[in-house]
Amino acid sequence: MTAMSMALTGDNGIQVVLMLFIMLAAAKILAELFERLRQPAVVGEILAGVIIGPSLLGWVSPSAITNTLAEIGVIFLLFGVGLETMPKSISKIGARATVVAVLGVFLPFVGGFLLMHWWGAPNLEALFIGTAMVATSVGITARVLGAMKVLEARTSRIILGAAVIDDILGLIILAMVSGTSAGRLNYLVIGTTAVMAIVFAALVLFVGAPAVKRLTPRIENLRASESLFIFGLLLCLGLSVAASYVGIAAIIGAFLAGMALAEPTEGHPTMHKQISGVTEFLVPFFLVNIGMQVRLEVFRSPSVLLLTGAITLMAVATKLIGCGLGALSLGWRPSLQVGMGMVPRGEVGIVVAQIGLSLAVINEELFGAVLFMAVATTLIAPPFLKILFSPDTAELRDPD
Amino acid sequence: MTAMSMALTGDNGIQVVLMLFIMLAAAKILAELFERLRQPAVVGEILAGVIIGPSLLGWVSPSAITNTLAEIGVIFLLFGVGLETMPKSISKIGARATVVAVLGVFLPFVGGFLLMHWWGAPNLEALFIGTAMVATSVGITARVLGAMKVLEARTSRIILGAAVIDDILGLIILAMVSGTSAGRLNYLVIGTTAVMAIVFAALVLFVGAPAVKRLTPRIENLRASESLFIFGLLLCLGLSVAASYVGIAAIIGAFLAGMALAEPTEGHPTMHKQISGVTEFLVPFFLVNIGMQVRLEVFRSPSVLLLTGAITLMAVATKLIGCGLGALSLGWRPSLQVGMGMVPRGEVGIVVAQIGLSLAVINEELFGAVLFMAVATTLIAPPFLKILFSPDTAELRDPD
Repeated sequence: MTAMSMALTGDNGIQVVLMLFIMLAAAKILAELFERLRQPAVVGEILAGVIIGPSLLGWVSPSAITNTLAEIGVIFLLFGVGLETMPKSISKIGARATVVAVLGVFLPFVGGFLLMHWWGAPNLEALFIGTAMVATSVGITARVLGAMKVLEARTSRIILGAAVIDDILGLIILAMVSGTSAGRLNYLVIGTTAVMAIVFAALVLFVGAPAVKRLTPRIENLRASESLFIFGLLLCLGLSVAASYVGIAAIIGAFLAGMALAEPTEGHPTMHKQISGVTEFLVPFFLVNIGMQVRLEVFRSPSVLLLTGAITLMAVATKLIGCGLGALSLGWRPSLQVGMGMVPRGEVGIVVAQIGLSLAVINEELFGAVLFMAVATTLIAPPFLKILFSPDTAELRDPD
Repeated sequence: MTAMSMALTGDNGIQVVLMLFIMLAAAKILAELFERLRQPAVVGEILAGVIIGPSLLGWVSPSAITNTLAEIGVIFLLFGVGLETMPKSISKIGARATVVAVLGVFLPFVGGFLLMHWWGAPNLEALFIGTAMVATSVGITARVLGAMKVLEARTSRIILGAAVIDDILGLIILAMVSGTSAGRLNYLVIGTTAVMAIVFAALVLFVGAPAVKRLTPRIENLRASESLFIFGLLLCLGLSVAASYVGIAAIIGAFLAGMALAEPTEGHPTMHKQISGVTEFLVPFFLVNIGMQVRLEVFRSPSVLLLTGAITLMAVATKLIGCGLGALSLGWRPSLQVGMGMVPRGEVGIVVAQIGLSLAVINEELFGAVLFMAVATTLIAPPFLKILFSPDTAELRDPD
């Protein structure tokens, strides 16, 4: 490469373009392979990250840039899911989703704490592991359900609704545990976070969504090209930032933005295809980035391996039983669908572990164990979801 | 914002999301305003960058992240343009495009050199200013022509073809001038760059495009979802990186990738809409980033103002006359269309100026003058293009 070409393209810029190419190509090659093996593509895309990441090939490492890309990817993923979720259908399942979320938070937290306590860990460490087991990574499940075109199913809506509530509960528990680790429990922060989250969601759904509905014809009549698509992008980015600033996860803002636009944009296939273009482009970076976080070398010690296995088993069992119980009145299969749909921890568990590591509450090995749990629960759920939901696909599959 | 929410969203990540929101919102508000004033939206989006950039409000500053975003934006812009350019129609206008490009490189280079020589600048400085006047920023023109839906017009094709050749000639001149500034003229590098560029373009168009055409039905039959769209993205990113590695501009690789896919994907509206989603999302960052480069404060000195005006006038006049002469046999209006379409210098002039500044060949004030020339030529051309092309729109407008 000559000096001029580096300057003309921006050396840094072209390195990023090369990284995008490697991540996207690896994700899609593994996705194709997994589809051919009749496994979910999402598992292949995460494994692509393990393969090209520092554990194996080392072609790409997690960095500020890949984390930012992943963040934007998961924001658009949840925006796309929200866009296919009618607010009315969520409010119908609100009560049940709340029961599912509360049980699905309580059991993993207590289970994780007791496991670590029995293992001989200090209380604070045990509390952190419990917290890392709480929050569901709805992105993975949403991706699998979306690819199977069963987002319309009642159990899918319960999963999505419960995951939102679950995320809010997880944030409150994290606030409590982090407060405890700093030697003080800030009830004001905890209360504010909880109230903010509820007010924010209510404002978007009961004030924002009707306003967007009234505005849509006007937005379409704007002179700037693709105005409805651009408005959707701005609402998604804006509510993500707003959610983050009031203390809840950015992805909840993106999900609510999508929901607010779901009804008004129902008859706009071009806008939906353009959004799907952005989503399909960006989501692989979120999935590959999860895989790249895995460090295989910490699992050489047998005791770490044993603990990792125990934590992972506990994480799967408590979520499956807790959430499953909440949906048991729907019957066995729907109850298992809901329980399995809530199993993936993905990036949320990883972030809790990172906070624990940065506060020196948990060590490198326990961090590795939690990381494994987060990725393993994410890899375990999709194949089972595919089996559990496959009888529903025929009746729900989109006719076009 | 609480500590947890920052961690859960990634503080860095959410800052970037906020920046994306500000840049996109500012671009689209100004675009809407300019459309209402019957001016090209692209001018509004560049001015949005001037307004939110360090010169005025200072909300967002050019950084590694904005430059990378802009780079990816212009790559997708040229990819989208290539996607609407049939290789056959380019080869028809190849000879005339070459004449337009050569005259459009020769006159600005000599004009810029003579102006600076007359002003009393050292030879090397004069050579650099001449070089900064050479390369057309085809992105801006392509955006205006695309928005007017006249990319099918013969003169549009001549502009696009000439801009590609012009970019290659510009790189060769930059190689020569940079070599001279380092006290040596590396004929090997110059020759290699020229040969590489020609071989690269020929390989993509005469070997790659037919191969893509044969592969398309197979790619569509892959199991992974949206496989044709993903293949398009990978070809765009891959050829951008490849072009950069062989020493030519990444955007030429992206343009050729689009051209190779133009015929095979003609009957795939969903793929085109998905690509347009990615393009419409990313291009504003390229335009806003150009505007953010402007530093209004260097223009307080009257002599800098005078020189800036002279450089800008010379840049417009030499390109208009040079390229116009090359297309004169088509008649007056087509000749003016081609000449005006080649006027914008945009980011290429800016990058040459940055190299000159980094080699200490030109000073801060002259850098400001070249920056102004680059942005001004970019702002001047679109309104005239709109006037010159408007009689063509009726006959060429896409029927759907």
